[in-house]
Amino acid sequence: MSIRYLTARIAQNIDQELMGTTGAFSLDQLMELAGLACAQTLATVYKRETHPRVLVCCGPGNQGGDGLVAARHLGMFGYNPTIWMPKPGSKEIFQRLKAQCENMRIPIIAPSTETAPLRDALARSDVVLDAIFGFSFKPPVRAPFDSALSLITESKLPIVSVDIPSGWDVENGNEAGVGLEPDVLISLTAPKEGAKNFKGRHFLGGRFVTKAMAEKFDLHLPEYPGFEQIVELTSVGQKL
Amino acid sequence: MSIRYLTARIAQNIDQELMGTTGAFSLDQLMELAGLACAQTLATVYKRETHPRVLVCCGPGNQGGDGLVAARHLGMFGYNPTIWMPKPGSKEIFQRLKAQCENMRIPIIAPSTETAPLRDALARSDVVLDAIFGFSFKPPVRAPFDSALSLITESKLPIVSVDIPSGWDVENGNEAGVGLEPDVLISLTAPKEGAKNFKGRHFLGGRFVTKAMAEKFDLHLPEYPGFEQIVELTSVGQKL
Repeated sequence: MSIRYLTARIAQNIDQELMGTTGAFSLDQLMELAGLACAQTLATVYKRETHPRVLVCCGPGNQGGDGLVAARHLGMFGYNPTIWMPKPGSKEIFQRLKAQCENMRIPIIAPSTETAPLRDALARSDVVLDAIFGFSFKPPVRAPFDSALSLITESKLPIVSVDIPSGWDVENGNEAGVGLEPDVLISLTAPKEGAKNFKGRHFLGGRFVTKAMAEKFDLHLPEYPGFEQIVELTSVGQKL
Repeated sequence: MSIRYLTARIAQNIDQELMGTTGAFSLDQLMELAGLACAQTLATVYKRETHPRVLVCCGPGNQGGDGLVAARHLGMFGYNPTIWMPKPGSKEIFQRLKAQCENMRIPIIAPSTETAPLRDALARSDVVLDAIFGFSFKPPVRAPFDSALSLITESKLPIVSVDIPSGWDVENGNEAGVGLEPDVLISLTAPKEGAKNFKGRHFLGGRFVTKAMAEKFDLHLPEYPGFEQIVELTSVGQKL
């Protein structure tokens, strides 16, 4: 049986179950493991010797939180991350995750209505971690993220996208053509329908789904190697 | 410069700083990373093919929480953990961490005034994860942990201890002779003074200490390899 690609609704149901009374996970725990998986995926493909400068682009929702956690771990791994987060989420957790990055002396680009700061940051980066939109994204892409997606694409930098490439419809992919075209994708929990035809290196993270939950949602997850937090789908024959 | 071995007071100061306004970490985050490091250490030394049955012994304090997180990750890694936790901590987080283990269908031994349940569990285990006492332990060892330490020692099972072997004085080691004698030790954040003469395989976990904090407390931490969450101190020439 092949791995299941999730609709936006099923992805949301799984998330609710993980954090509900049955799953009992806190957002802190899930973000920590998700962000760690994102950082490890980037570090697997882009070594710090050749790609030390990582621009971590964070959206306004929970995926922005995954990005902040990933930025901190990348700093721990010896990379030089910079954070672009023009609309930080209002939940208290974002303030804490941001403070943790500030304690690591990770530069955070000040919010601006101009495109110049992002353009400059891209010019000083080796790779982009795209944590802008997740599985709850609904088009259209609103400012300032619309121009950001164009700038990131124009930069021609390698891109690692979290869960679903930003600008893609969660179920229909990049049919509108406004989304990023990442080189690497790290799906969390299970891949989303929109990523079925993704052609780059595809990883899976989120090693916190119980067997019972995987069975309930028919996920057919691959086995993670050893005690790793990520597994490459392209190498286990799961790629469609 | 050699790695610094911490007094109980310094270990407490570092913990307070990590979770205070400067560190901004939540207990959920730190326990998740600590427990993951414990599980990965056990899995590094004792493969699931030869040592599938892990008895995770959890104390009443935060280290018991690390143990619960480790048990869950060990379950994810394909081990068959069993939890012995006779006096679960009263904080809400322990209830959540316990529920996460129950969702994994990890057996939890019912609290008992008898020694038989622990004795039986030891007889059905291949290795013990000792998460009973941490750096805030003060002698003497009270019931039911006093008889538990004897039973664990008598079982002759290999032992992986978290942070400081249970029953050891955090600064003076096992001079009273009542503590466990583990084969493996996973120190968290930095090793404790009592572990200076530990002779087994010694690992370090807790890759969340910023450079600034390491400098402030003169920790002289070794470099972690790649994107790993643990580093073996015995292999980096840090062993005294």
